[in-house]
Amino acid sequence: MLISEVGPRDGLQNCAATMPLDIKKKWIAAEAAAGVTEIEVGSFVSRKLLPQMADTGDVVEFAKTIPGLTVAVLVPNMRGAEAAVAAGAHKVTLPLSVSETHSLKNIRRTHDQVIDEARAIAEYFSGLPADERPHFEGSLSTAFGCTLEGPIELSTILRLAERLLEAGCDEIGVSDTTGYGDPASIRTMIREVRGVVGDDKLQGVHLHNTRGLGLANALAAFEEGITTFDSSLGGLGGCPTAPGASGNIVTEDLVFMFESMGVATGIDLEKLLKCREIVAAGVPDEELYGFLPRAGLPLGFVGAG
Amino acid sequence: MLISEVGPRDGLQNCAATMPLDIKKKWIAAEAAAGVTEIEVGSFVSRKLLPQMADTGDVVEFAKTIPGLTVAVLVPNMRGAEAAVAAGAHKVTLPLSVSETHSLKNIRRTHDQVIDEARAIAEYFSGLPADERPHFEGSLSTAFGCTLEGPIELSTILRLAERLLEAGCDEIGVSDTTGYGDPASIRTMIREVRGVVGDDKLQGVHLHNTRGLGLANALAAFEEGITTFDSSLGGLGGCPTAPGASGNIVTEDLVFMFESMGVATGIDLEKLLKCREIVAAGVPDEELYGFLPRAGLPLGFVGAG
Repeated sequence: MLISEVGPRDGLQNCAATMPLDIKKKWIAAEAAAGVTEIEVGSFVSRKLLPQMADTGDVVEFAKTIPGLTVAVLVPNMRGAEAAVAAGAHKVTLPLSVSETHSLKNIRRTHDQVIDEARAIAEYFSGLPADERPHFEGSLSTAFGCTLEGPIELSTILRLAERLLEAGCDEIGVSDTTGYGDPASIRTMIREVRGVVGDDKLQGVHLHNTRGLGLANALAAFEEGITTFDSSLGGLGGCPTAPGASGNIVTEDLVFMFESMGVATGIDLEKLLKCREIVAAGVPDEELYGFLPRAGLPLGFVGAG
Repeated sequence: MLISEVGPRDGLQNCAATMPLDIKKKWIAAEAAAGVTEIEVGSFVSRKLLPQMADTGDVVEFAKTIPGLTVAVLVPNMRGAEAAVAAGAHKVTLPLSVSETHSLKNIRRTHDQVIDEARAIAEYFSGLPADERPHFEGSLSTAFGCTLEGPIELSTILRLAERLLEAGCDEIGVSDTTGYGDPASIRTMIREVRGVVGDDKLQGVHLHNTRGLGLANALAAFEEGITTFDSSLGGLGGCPTAPGASGNIVTEDLVFMFESMGVATGIDLEKLLKCREIVAAGVPDEELYGFLPRAGLPLGFVGAG
């Protein structure tokens, strides 16, 4: 079971304030010390659009000094991919919104244009020496429905998954960007996408908790054989379209669910909970979410060890 | 799929303020109009201990005028059972805390004493004319662990389930009073208890959301074949031991999960969401929980019909 912390990227880029670089470093180091082995530390995007991510190169450089940590980043295009390689990221994710309306509105690109970009990035990566070549994930965002288009045709999603793989992605991810997924649709999507790309090419899901189904959806995905789960410490970032509602799944609650079930995450919950203080200090105006942090561990709790 | 609303009982008895009788009636009528077919409307307990429940007789009398509504109440003892019959409740639940420490602290009774009370109540009920005889549930509370004792031996729990049935209960319920359950322990408990009492005698679970696992636990229980789920509108009542943390599962979120999955609850979500205004007006100092109420229904959402 791999818990991939996305707070420093997906969390912080939805915060109004910019977390100082030294606090980002402290946060990443503390989570790694708690046993988190993969962290999406930032995204290589326009500094003008997302000043919160302007120091991603420095963050990657620091994170790479932590032994055993997989350092992941998000990139929207080739320029970002080049910056990721220059910084030495281990894993690069390129999102493709399966809602073309959303894709056009968000990054002003059609599906064809994003697939072309994926192909160009994959070719660029394949020309690099093996020790500089990042793992390349193509992520299907708004997979469970779009706030502009509503539900997207399954056939469209499956064709895009196929095309991302053909373009050269090592792996396909599925993202419930809008929090529209439910346990049944999560199961169906995983089976269908795996049917097209193969089980080994879909290992991870990025689920949101916008409508409270985050953990139930994670449970359904786990039961379908998914082994990598994105989540954010304190559910950081919230959901800009729904004030007061958490966007990302809360890492603390997700780890608690798996450990309670006897599924080892390798993460020390007490240490993980302490990381909240760092984040609270780094973005003091942001609300931190989570049930476990308020209720505490059950009396006599034993994790999966 | 039966959603059993417990807010007027489990929710209100954990509120500091007492909801006026006319607002209780308005709430119950509005939820029934939204399609909720079973409501635990109150408990017959000491007025001194729980003044919030002092008007339960009047509430039952009113609720019984709503066609098609199953009117449920909680009772701690024979005296409560007699009051329930006098008022005409359709369903009576007697809780038995599987933690004897908790039972002694909470109602000053040993397991043997509670079993004796269950037997006396069952005998009393069986002597009533069929149309006055309530359905009698024995509910195993703190089944997933106690805040005083920690986890309780499974063999103890199974023996108590067996004894409640022998004493004359029509049905056994399982309650995660403390929010200690997880999807794996929920599955195990349902299988084990059903192994002792029979599948048809365990149809319902009462789950809490104290540590955020409420809906994931409900999903696991559903997949084990459970058909009745307790929940509380707005998660009302919270958890007195964990300020800011919801106690009960939020009815709105639970209904949303099932309806999203294509599992019909018979409940109209838009109408259900409107009931929150009544509750907010009735206990203005209480926090109402829930993700769906903040985020709203997904674009293009179609329930199970």
